[in-house]
Amino acid sequence: MHILTIGAAGMLGRKVTQRLVDDKGLDGQTIDTMTLVDVIAPEAPTSFDGTTNRIAVDLSAPGTAADLIATRPDVIFHFAAIVSGEAEADFEKGYRINLDGTRDLFEAIRRAHLEDGYFPRVVFASSIAVVGAPLPFPIPDDFHTTPLTSYGTQKAISELLLADYTRHGFFDGIGIRLPTLCIRPGKPNKAASGFFSSILREPLVGQPAVLPVPDDIRHWHTSPRSAVGFMIHAATMNLSQLGARRNLSMPGLSATVGEQIEALRRVAGDAAVALIRREPDAAITRMCEGWAPGFEATRARALGFTAEDSFDDIIRHHIEDELDGAQ
Amino acid sequence: MHILTIGAAGMLGRKVTQRLVDDKGLDGQTIDTMTLVDVIAPEAPTSFDGTTNRIAVDLSAPGTAADLIATRPDVIFHFAAIVSGEAEADFEKGYRINLDGTRDLFEAIRRAHLEDGYFPRVVFASSIAVVGAPLPFPIPDDFHTTPLTSYGTQKAISELLLADYTRHGFFDGIGIRLPTLCIRPGKPNKAASGFFSSILREPLVGQPAVLPVPDDIRHWHTSPRSAVGFMIHAATMNLSQLGARRNLSMPGLSATVGEQIEALRRVAGDAAVALIRREPDAAITRMCEGWAPGFEATRARALGFTAEDSFDDIIRHHIEDELDGAQ
Repeated sequence: MHILTIGAAGMLGRKVTQRLVDDKGLDGQTIDTMTLVDVIAPEAPTSFDGTTNRIAVDLSAPGTAADLIATRPDVIFHFAAIVSGEAEADFEKGYRINLDGTRDLFEAIRRAHLEDGYFPRVVFASSIAVVGAPLPFPIPDDFHTTPLTSYGTQKAISELLLADYTRHGFFDGIGIRLPTLCIRPGKPNKAASGFFSSILREPLVGQPAVLPVPDDIRHWHTSPRSAVGFMIHAATMNLSQLGARRNLSMPGLSATVGEQIEALRRVAGDAAVALIRREPDAAITRMCEGWAPGFEATRARALGFTAEDSFDDIIRHHIEDELDGAQ
Repeated sequence: MHILTIGAAGMLGRKVTQRLVDDKGLDGQTIDTMTLVDVIAPEAPTSFDGTTNRIAVDLSAPGTAADLIATRPDVIFHFAAIVSGEAEADFEKGYRINLDGTRDLFEAIRRAHLEDGYFPRVVFASSIAVVGAPLPFPIPDDFHTTPLTSYGTQKAISELLLADYTRHGFFDGIGIRLPTLCIRPGKPNKAASGFFSSILREPLVGQPAVLPVPDDIRHWHTSPRSAVGFMIHAATMNLSQLGARRNLSMPGLSATVGEQIEALRRVAGDAAVALIRREPDAAITRMCEGWAPGFEATRARALGFTAEDSFDDIIRHHIEDELDGAQ
């Protein structure tokens, strides 16, 4: 089996790759080859017995998608995107990478399909950014896509393309609308949503963290562990159950910042909570108020996608996965 | 004032053009120039005092959109599309005309905006084909777009682009999701939905018509007269009321085929109804069962869009507009 992961140097790409190695295959099949693609050369996974191809390339560059598809991978994970802030600031780059790159990939698969019947599984990472305020709570599965960013627009368009290419039988596609990933491992970053993770991640290792919004801000979260689980399930489940509606809002946990903090207190104590410093920021608060407070995700749950149902578990899974079980 | 109409040779394009001439302007402003564009040269309107440019060109051909925008039209009606059946059968042509053509137009406007602050009104003809079965009845305004055709996918993507370009301030856009137009004037055509019009249009002039579906098939209609009204209202209303949600399901009339026929009986008598021959077609019936039975259109009605609320009126308006008031 040959797996192609585009966006393999990102957090999700690295975790899915390592999970495939640790699982020694996908859906009972041995993986012979992993092709890992990103704008910088992805790291090779540890302890993989097969062949690893590490490719640094821009998916939207002419001919790139066709070259990647020439090797006829069986499963394609497409996680590559420039992030929301950059896509908003650089309109042309956002459309080139996040829309044209995705369309080039789908077109390369279509042409291969017309050539020799090639029919891979395509797992696409979409985002809750496809919706935008005003939003109900919880957001039903059949709520319309009303993105308020170019990033969300590009994800929503990619979802539509994925469904149409699948309907025509060019590939077997599924779009996974990811909640905000929390707790994101690594260093604090500049994303406006970064505090959702940092108010937990930093205190867990004795570091201070800044909270720029009120405690009653509600948002929709899932752990990196659950997100990896979504991708593996999406790569193995029978997709004919989905019919023509190929894009699914994933399960997650709706929680206020206050609830996140109380979970931190239960798991790591008052001393950890005391490391959170409140520095209200009106601009970040306004942005957060436009974000998704939570989804029903009825369909995804019925199809076997699962996520944590308490923030205590999300924090515990972070401690197990990122801190070797220790705080 | 300069009006650019793309898709000006089609039924809606011709009617909107003639309405602008008959109204002697738009929103109280005199129209100096009308540029009428289509793949075949559109007819010039009768009795127009200004300048008419008639241009036969493919919008998706390189440089075409930029050439059209070089003249900086104040209002742009974009109605051009290849129809559903053709976009389904010729995948590449559908995406080229219906998606790339629209994106080329929006890009040409964006570049002009960056050059000199150009900021036109853009009225885009979308379609109820952006939704697909299974559908609730009535379909709420916030129902997700789940097209079951490439045509519907291309319209849904164009809606997303229109909203994003508008949000960025490149133009002032509105997408008008048209119901099925009934009674379509002219000859019977090969569209699977053609019977909705022909079972009324042909009997009104003493000709036979074929009904391929059961009487209880329910669908969503509006008259050509109302559709023209939607476009004029869209071109003149204050669009800031729409916020970021720039695509609106238009009002219409939800009716079963049986209800259409009873309206025909009331307006034109039993002799007209007797001209309808039932020839059940399982394939057409299956297709119809996937089509939209009706929308709430709450938002559009609140914003002043209006349509007939009885099929009797739809038939009467056809008699007035197409048959000089006579049957």
